[in-house]
Amino acid sequence: MTVHALEAARRLAPRFAARAAEHDRDGSFPVEDFRDLREAGLFGLMVPPALGGMGATFAEYAAVATELARGNGATALVFNMHASVTGALGAVTEELAEALGVPDEALAARDRLLKAAAQGSWYAVAMSERGAGARLSQLSTVYEATDDGWHLKGSKTFCSGAGHADGYLVAARSSADQSVVSQFLVTAGDGLTVEPTWDALGMRATSSHDLHLDVAVPADRLLGGVEGLALVVAQLMPHWLVASYAAVYVGVARAAIDAAAEHLNARNLAGLPAVRARLGRADAATAAAELVMAEAARRVDDAPGDAETNRWVWRAKLLAGTTAAEVAASMLEAAGTSATRRGHPLERLYRDARCGSLHPATSDVCADWLGIAALGGDPDRDGSAPRW
Amino acid sequence: MTVHALEAARRLAPRFAARAAEHDRDGSFPVEDFRDLREAGLFGLMVPPALGGMGATFAEYAAVATELARGNGATALVFNMHASVTGALGAVTEELAEALGVPDEALAARDRLLKAAAQGSWYAVAMSERGAGARLSQLSTVYEATDDGWHLKGSKTFCSGAGHADGYLVAARSSADQSVVSQFLVTAGDGLTVEPTWDALGMRATSSHDLHLDVAVPADRLLGGVEGLALVVAQLMPHWLVASYAAVYVGVARAAIDAAAEHLNARNLAGLPAVRARLGRADAATAAAELVMAEAARRVDDAPGDAETNRWVWRAKLLAGTTAAEVAASMLEAAGTSATRRGHPLERLYRDARCGSLHPATSDVCADWLGIAALGGDPDRDGSAPRW
Amino acid sequence: MTVHALEAARRLAPRFAARAAEHDRDGSFPVEDFRDLREAGLFGLMVPPALGGMGATFAEYAAVATELARGNGATALVFNMHASVTGALGAVTEELAEALGVPDEALAARDRLLKAAAQGSWYAVAMSERGAGARLSQLSTVYEATDDGWHLKGSKTFCSGAGHADGYLVAARSSADQSVVSQFLVTAGDGLTVEPTWDALGMRATSSHDLHLDVAVPADRLLGGVEGLALVVAQLMPHWLVASYAAVYVGVARAAIDAAAEHLNARNLAGLPAVRARLGRADAATAAAELVMAEAARRVDDAPGDAETNRWVWRAKLLAGTTAAEVAASMLEAAGTSATRRGHPLERLYRDARCGSLHPATSDVCADWLGIAALGGDPDRDGSAPRW
Amino acid sequence: MTVHALEAARRLAPRFAARAAEHDRDGSFPVEDFRDLREAGLFGLMVPPALGGMGATFAEYAAVATELARGNGATALVFNMHASVTGALGAVTEELAEALGVPDEALAARDRLLKAAAQGSWYAVAMSERGAGARLSQLSTVYEATDDGWHLKGSKTFCSGAGHADGYLVAARSSADQSVVSQFLVTAGDGLTVEPTWDALGMRATSSHDLHLDVAVPADRLLGGVEGLALVVAQLMPHWLVASYAAVYVGVARAAIDAAAEHLNARNLAGLPAVRARLGRADAATAAAELVMAEAARRVDDAPGDAETNRWVWRAKLLAGTTAAEVAASMLEAAGTSATRRGHPLERLYRDARCGSLHPATSDVCADWLGIAALGGDPDRDGSAPRW
Repeated sequence: MTVHALEAARRLAPRFAARAAEHDRDGSFPVEDFRDLREAGLFGLMVPPALGGMGATFAEYAAVATELARGNGATALVFNMHASVTGALGAVTEELAEALGVPDEALAARDRLLKAAAQGSWYAVAMSERGAGARLSQLSTVYEATDDGWHLKGSKTFCSGAGHADGYLVAARSSADQSVVSQFLVTAGDGLTVEPTWDALGMRATSSHDLHLDVAVPADRLLGGVEGLALVVAQLMPHWLVASYAAVYVGVARAAIDAAAEHLNARNLAGLPAVRARLGRADAATAAAELVMAEAARRVDDAPGDAETNRWVWRAKLLAGTTAAEVAASMLEAAGTSATRRGHPLERLYRDARCGSLHPATSDVCADWLGIAALGGDPDRDGSAPRW
Repeated sequence: MTVHALEAARRLAPRFAARAAEHDRDGSFPVEDFRDLREAGLFGLMVPPALGGMGATFAEYAAVATELARGNGATALVFNMHASVTGALGAVTEELAEALGVPDEALAARDRLLKAAAQGSWYAVAMSERGAGARLSQLSTVYEATDDGWHLKGSKTFCSGAGHADGYLVAARSSADQSVVSQFLVTAGDGLTVEPTWDALGMRATSSHDLHLDVAVPADRLLGGVEGLALVVAQLMPHWLVASYAAVYVGVARAAIDAAAEHLNARNLAGLPAVRARLGRADAATAAAELVMAEAARRVDDAPGDAETNRWVWRAKLLAGTTAAEVAASMLEAAGTSATRRGHPLERLYRDARCGSLHPATSDVCADWLGIAALGGDPDRDGSAPRW
Repeated sequence: MTVHALEAARRLAPRFAARAAEHDRDGSFPVEDFRDLREAGLFGLMVPPALGGMGATFAEYAAVATELARGNGATALVFNMHASVTGALGAVTEELAEALGVPDEALAARDRLLKAAAQGSWYAVAMSERGAGARLSQLSTVYEATDDGWHLKGSKTFCSGAGHADGYLVAARSSADQSVVSQFLVTAGDGLTVEPTWDALGMRATSSHDLHLDVAVPADRLLGGVEGLALVVAQLMPHWLVASYAAVYVGVARAAIDAAAEHLNARNLAGLPAVRARLGRADAATAAAELVMAEAARRVDDAPGDAETNRWVWRAKLLAGTTAAEVAASMLEAAGTSATRRGHPLERLYRDARCGSLHPATSDVCADWLGIAALGGDPDRDGSAPRW
Repeated sequence: MTVHALEAARRLAPRFAARAAEHDRDGSFPVEDFRDLREAGLFGLMVPPALGGMGATFAEYAAVATELARGNGATALVFNMHASVTGALGAVTEELAEALGVPDEALAARDRLLKAAAQGSWYAVAMSERGAGARLSQLSTVYEATDDGWHLKGSKTFCSGAGHADGYLVAARSSADQSVVSQFLVTAGDGLTVEPTWDALGMRATSSHDLHLDVAVPADRLLGGVEGLALVVAQLMPHWLVASYAAVYVGVARAAIDAAAEHLNARNLAGLPAVRARLGRADAATAAAELVMAEAARRVDDAPGDAETNRWVWRAKLLAGTTAAEVAASMLEAAGTSATRRGHPLERLYRDARCGSLHPATSDVCADWLGIAALGGDPDRDGSAPRW
């Protein structure tokens, strides 16, 4: 699949780039970008071929996400959420399903969701909450069983794609047992209210609004068919909660270098030694972050959730976030005041790039975990805060 | 005067801060801030007491500018332009006037401009041009003598306060002799057209629009009364073209630390070691930049334009610009995603702070000049580009 | 005094520099440097004029120490220990003595020590111990009262000047009451054994060997004449335990720039843009560190031990240590491989400079304390470890 | 071969590490390390199997060099010179030989040199000269034809392994035609004089002494059998002149992290947040440098000398050099003063690590070349200095 999907991403990136300034300015959702993604079949990127998708590996996803982000980081960031949902659903093998006690009908329901994705539906993630952040163990959204399914009630924040997705992956806590956290796939429609709170420094086109839920869902929308799987899945697939961001910010860093080179060449400033030094160091740092991302992704495919895989995931997250921010800041400085005008790609990229280190796990948290591991410890056990 | 002006600045800063988010969002000029400045008498800050002003030193200016910038960097940046004009005019001593061949009527005209400032007028600077940047030697705006004065024609860019100032300091080239560059004080009114081009990453409230001139001015508006003084004055008072920015960015850096501390304390996050390390290093760097600014300012007062004074001016510009950008980026990272929402002070400060290194002389240029000087060379002679 | 002492320091620095390579290579004590210091009367720098000394302020000390360090950082570091002892003794005013309950005979004893210094004696500090580091609260060296004085027993490490000083300030714990820590001035001679353990990366000429004590001292050698004053004095005069190092490393950073400039000019490499950028940024950073050191010193003189004074002390320590290390590393890179030959000043300065951040309080600790203070906390209360 | 050679390297590294402190202290050559390398057959690493060697790829070399450097960077650096000679000789294919006009007897002579290496001989490189540095175009060592071969006369510097190698690759200029630079393989023995000048900050065990030549060599020792090939080969195989260093410094960086972790765990300091942050960031940076090195090496094997390959080579050189220096400095700061005692691995690694950026092409030069390439230029054409 790689070739096809990667070519599609490369073909779409310039279109995304051409629309990026407008969506950034208005904070509007890149609806056309998502139409393009649908038409290119990319909503099925992580869906197994048997269900009509491309069956991409995580490494293939990462390469696609980086290319999309060279066009518009915000689009790639929302797409990353859909890829996370479909990727995690698709990664539940029969063995794992059996080990977790997932009933057959839940697997069938899962297949229906994935088929729909391959046919053009896309899903957002409604996990974070004000106060709790992205920590599953701190959620206040609750659910309870009803006669014919489940009722969910609560409020989510930072829900990228809110109001545009066809469905939402919602994490909630059982009202019967506070320690049980489950995930549901809630179809867009009645019972969901988008509160347009997203108006941020960067990644402005993600529509990461608040989402209020007071909604009934059918029984089969409990993912896995068994309550309490949310934390288990987080432990098994941390890459989808951490590393998938990293691929986006590698693309943002690369886009900043490209934009600076174009700007400087257009003004005949390529001969300035200080400018060359800035571009050279940015190029090396970005190339390094890209390789670390690729290595992390390769290992995710080989041994998801392993301790060594997780170290690479944290390295990728740390380096992509810090590199994007530093590179964009340096490229803007190389390009000079004329590149700070709104509508200039570097003006947007400087803001977008700052967000990478802030997504969970933050750069400071990744550095702490990596340090613990380098000292022979275990971040799960020795960290100062619960990882999820 | 210090006490009075500095107290006024400290009193006004919180008011400016309260209005900053709105002006940043809309890119609107902080009209009320300037009314406050007028009422506090601060337009007369650099005007000699004999002409009704406060007669501040450059060091006193720097302290005032830093305080104003803790409220709103954009307001302080525009105020800095007025201070530059009045400060440079006020610094022309009788000895200097005689040495430059400034006629008595020009000194009288100068006094009228300064008196007007003390009474509440303020001036903007219209120097930069698209293509030429801030280099006096590259300007394309021209002037020619008329029967009763001068006619100026051309276009300026990055004219902070355009459309709001009472007068503009305009640099132009003689149409009779390309090598002659002079400066005029042009009163707001007919013949000046503001093109609202300013819509930038940071310092959005400065209204640094383009200004088109096709305007006749009276004979006495040629500053100094003698043509060709612009480059001479630039050589004599480089601090007004370089260091005055630095004081603003010291205030921006300090504001970022203050905002981060308030944000983190409100969320009970002050105990996180990574957060404390970020604030501690930011505090030390900002304190250092502030001292370097104060030292540069003190030397400007003692020996303006001296080689050693200029080194301090470049150090102040370099450190204030790089420190503000690095501190704001780190404080935003310490505060986390919730501080990236528009309207949050750190969101604005992160953008404002990036602009300091880009004002001329840029950080890279200052580093080059300082390096030449450290190696025993002379930036005027050994630099790779003309300084003005 | 400033003028005299500062001139003397400037006169001596080149002599120290000429001897520095040899002492660095052999790890030998700069005996001639100390003879020069004695002859210049600098052992009396901190001694009140009434007792025959120069009565220097802390700020004057700092300026002298920086100049000496431009010659040889190791010599300045040992001198700093003597200045700490005499400075702290001299700073005990009659009011403080009364408040602490210091008897008259102790003041007389103190005066004898200071007079001896003014006449050419110098003192080292024997505080740190293996395991305890520099924490007074963790010492294992003990003392007990004898019929005619005190008996001290224990082992010290990092005792700069061991084997060369005329006396040693020794901190010890009472064998009768573990919570009581006192300080003694022990004359060189029997009962003291120097174990030559000092063979380190940098500051090799300090002879910071281990010192084993099993020694009887007269009654009047208990400083202050009252047991248990050590921690009180540490609280009152933290600058002598922290900031005095900083002045040395400012001098080391400046020496590195000077050496790089000389090296590059001799090879006609001053025109390389990358070299100029390195020197320019190093110059600005070093100038900033020097100002912060001067400001901290000024405040120490005005309000020793105050919370705001202490913040400046930590800023000075943090910036001097990090700046020296970064500047020396960059200057060596600017100068290139030929400057890595042993005997080249930059080769030594690169090693010496790394030590500044490691002296207590380390750079990381200073950053933590400054962060706590910036967040409105109190390092004494909120720090993760006891400050002394 | 990878497995065998890599396993051998891993087996030898701890032995090298155990001897490293002594050779560093004395500046003595690690004779036993080289005996171990010979016995493990590693002198034949780059020799084609047909000639008795292991036939390693460049990527395999890089992995081996990194492992050796985790034991002792100095040993790895000298080994790198031998690998460069044998690797470059072995890389001359029949097609290339024909294109360059290499006669059959020269290929036979080449094969004899490689066979000797496989049987236990090793070669050093004598290229750099005082004044010229490593620039082939600036050499002053000359050669002239004699009746039965060549006579070489001149002086080399930084000749790693001088006095210990079995042969030396010597670059020299034709006395008949200054523009012709050729390379000879000179056997150790009469006519070569080692002047023990190497006494440096780091990599002290390399014996990179001066080598004076006044020596006759047989006709077949002109490499390639044709004069004037030196610059051609430099253009074709820049990786052997640049990237091979990088692999060594990746190993040095990793060794510093390992040493810091061991030191901190032994002192129960692994729980300090500042320490963990330092180790975490060092780990990520080193992992990135290692991947960039591996990618560069892979591309060298696929398309040696290609423009894109060269970019990766410069990235590897830049990142390995800067990462090693920064990581070692940070690890020493994490470990604290006790790690600065001579004999402690971190004390040596801090000095060794600083050398990586200084080897040609220096970090600043690599950054310049990468910047030119990122801006669409060609470093050969647009650089400010000749590349060789």
